[in-house]
Amino acid sequence: MRISTLSVGDELICGQITDTNAGTIAEAFLNQGLRLQRHMSVGDSEPDIIEALLELGRNSDVVIVTGGLGPTADDLTARAAARATGRRLVLNDHAKAHVRDMSGRLASLIVCPLNDKQAMIPSKTTLIPNPTGTACGFYLMNNGCFMFFLPGVPTEMVRMLHESVLPYLVERATPKHVIRTEHLNVFGPCEAEVDEMLSGLAQPGQGLYLGICVTFPWMRITLRAEADSDDKAAALLAPAVLFAQERLQEYVFSIGKITVDETVAALFIQQGMTLALAESCTGGMIAQRITSISGSSRYFLEGAVTYSNAAKTRQLGVDATLLVEKAAVSGEAASAMAKGVRQAAGSDLGLAVTGIAGPDGGTIDKPVGTVFISLAAPDGCWTKRFLFSGSRDEIRTITAWTALDWLRRYLVRRAAA
Amino acid sequence: MRISTLSVGDELICGQITDTNAGTIAEAFLNQGLRLQRHMSVGDSEPDIIEALLELGRNSDVVIVTGGLGPTADDLTARAAARATGRRLVLNDHAKAHVRDMSGRLASLIVCPLNDKQAMIPSKTTLIPNPTGTACGFYLMNNGCFMFFLPGVPTEMVRMLHESVLPYLVERATPKHVIRTEHLNVFGPCEAEVDEMLSGLAQPGQGLYLGICVTFPWMRITLRAEADSDDKAAALLAPAVLFAQERLQEYVFSIGKITVDETVAALFIQQGMTLALAESCTGGMIAQRITSISGSSRYFLEGAVTYSNAAKTRQLGVDATLLVEKAAVSGEAASAMAKGVRQAAGSDLGLAVTGIAGPDGGTIDKPVGTVFISLAAPDGCWTKRFLFSGSRDEIRTITAWTALDWLRRYLVRRAAA
Repeated sequence: MRISTLSVGDELICGQITDTNAGTIAEAFLNQGLRLQRHMSVGDSEPDIIEALLELGRNSDVVIVTGGLGPTADDLTARAAARATGRRLVLNDHAKAHVRDMSGRLASLIVCPLNDKQAMIPSKTTLIPNPTGTACGFYLMNNGCFMFFLPGVPTEMVRMLHESVLPYLVERATPKHVIRTEHLNVFGPCEAEVDEMLSGLAQPGQGLYLGICVTFPWMRITLRAEADSDDKAAALLAPAVLFAQERLQEYVFSIGKITVDETVAALFIQQGMTLALAESCTGGMIAQRITSISGSSRYFLEGAVTYSNAAKTRQLGVDATLLVEKAAVSGEAASAMAKGVRQAAGSDLGLAVTGIAGPDGGTIDKPVGTVFISLAAPDGCWTKRFLFSGSRDEIRTITAWTALDWLRRYLVRRAAA
Repeated sequence: MRISTLSVGDELICGQITDTNAGTIAEAFLNQGLRLQRHMSVGDSEPDIIEALLELGRNSDVVIVTGGLGPTADDLTARAAARATGRRLVLNDHAKAHVRDMSGRLASLIVCPLNDKQAMIPSKTTLIPNPTGTACGFYLMNNGCFMFFLPGVPTEMVRMLHESVLPYLVERATPKHVIRTEHLNVFGPCEAEVDEMLSGLAQPGQGLYLGICVTFPWMRITLRAEADSDDKAAALLAPAVLFAQERLQEYVFSIGKITVDETVAALFIQQGMTLALAESCTGGMIAQRITSISGSSRYFLEGAVTYSNAAKTRQLGVDATLLVEKAAVSGEAASAMAKGVRQAAGSDLGLAVTGIAGPDGGTIDKPVGTVFISLAAPDGCWTKRFLFSGSRDEIRTITAWTALDWLRRYLVRRAAA
């Protein structure tokens, strides 16, 4: 089943808002074992919508169209659908009743004028109920292609997709084609290295596919198994996931939708340890991520964002002469900060970062991107110098990621010991 | 000039990541008076890429393709471009030298093995330099259609678009239709209120358009003027911007691409004041945003992320009995934190937040979303209670926004006094 999506709206092709409907639909289909072939977006132009419908109709068995079903003059999808498929645009009594009913119900929220325009639907179509908005959806068959038309409001679209469109299509999708996916989330190596480590894994001939998606500074590895039954797909996927985990080892920080922040949180709770942070160049970014997890107060005691030397000395007890002699951006300062915050807070772990995020402040000895990370723990204190590249935001982000990865690796090793 | 975009990548049509490149390109073109006609996305499938190139090529004067130029086996765009346009795929010496050079330069961050695959480029094309990554872009002319191929990594793509593609196209575009836009960035009122305040502003008949784009928790108001000359468009736009500013008053925190963080930073420097922060429920989010601005060390002295009561007492000097009698989430605690951090850091301003971000920890008196913000300044100390709704992340985000907006309003009023 070749499936395409079409998003209609000036705001989409003017870059004012990002089209999230396309991705939402793609993921919903994939979870049903149905894979999208292509997606298209056009503006609120009747000729463009007609051309897109004809083009997608020629190459697809199913087209899902979103947007352009509203009450205003720039909502042109219903008329374009009628023209593209040789139908008349007629006042649909059921749609009219629905618009009136919903306008009444929504009046308390937002007052919408009644508008018969939303009840003008192409002839020879079937309505798709919209439980939460005024715009009815509809579907029709044209030259062997099923075309489904849904409103562009994401919440309305999603509900209609799941309640009407997907059940309808899944029932008709024959023979049954099952897709199973698993995601491995990786931090550390570059794309080419991961590709090398996983060479030989993908077997497109057997229905086993590999995708690598780089999302600075980490990457998501997707393993996809396609087969004619759920059991076969699962049997194809499971050994592939094990193979990838063995190859990538501790570069894998989580499986599926779990973030690195959630992984670190779970390890802290599992190990019963507590944490205090001292941040200079990341300026609170690590603390913000640690505390983004509900329940983090169980292991996170406090953080200090010590931008000035005075704050490093007063809050963390770092020797003022050390900051002068060794500089605030130095391994000595980083380890003094880590030990200092650990002692002041009375935590099991103290983590500190100090560095030059730029774009100013670099020197020949310590160019922009120089960062020291230090971890003070009951069994020792480790400090390392890094040289990251990129913008201020990128350097801060990869520093925070690296620091969180240190915590993860320390806790994983402790759990294994 | 009919312009289309094509994004290539399995991750885009599997819904794993949202395609932001399409919107970025659309906006960049619009700012040059060039409007996109359509956008398409396909997966990492050579037949699908070829078909999309042929189809878009037939209906467009310009096609901008992003993605699929990387070093791994699923990067198929260069080969598909060669096939679709009847070219051979050849090892390009310039591209090869570039890949080697960039791999060397990036080695300090992440060591990537050399890979000649990225130097395989269709014959009879012109390279597009990529100053920040290994993948060279290229462009070619096929049956009267210019096709530009850029990497999918957003930062690399954007730079190549602005440095190479746009200048090339703008020079060749026949000037006839001019589009001018201005953005007003607003925090505070809801969409319906803004719509009401700006009623009568849009004049589509005159070529003056209004768009409101809500991006939680703020919104961007876009004024767009279209005319047949730059002067006419400017004459249409300028009074509309003034009108909108007068109506929206201090809800407008910036114009154009300036963020609220940058606005606050500029005000601190202009006023010569310094800041210290004490955060509980936001956990470093405010400090992280303040320090995201280069040069923030001139006014930001330090931040304390005081999750535990012990930290509030030790770091900020908040009376331990007050925390017990009035509770850590209270107006008294917030103002004691603000005054305490101001005194400890010796800063002009002390800002503190304490609250319940949820999903747990709420009570009948203080449900999830209860937040106290306090600002201690030379001329007084103000504390206010808020009740925000949403997820943990949303409550933290709107708290940080509200706190930054307090700083902005205080500094704006001080500047006016």
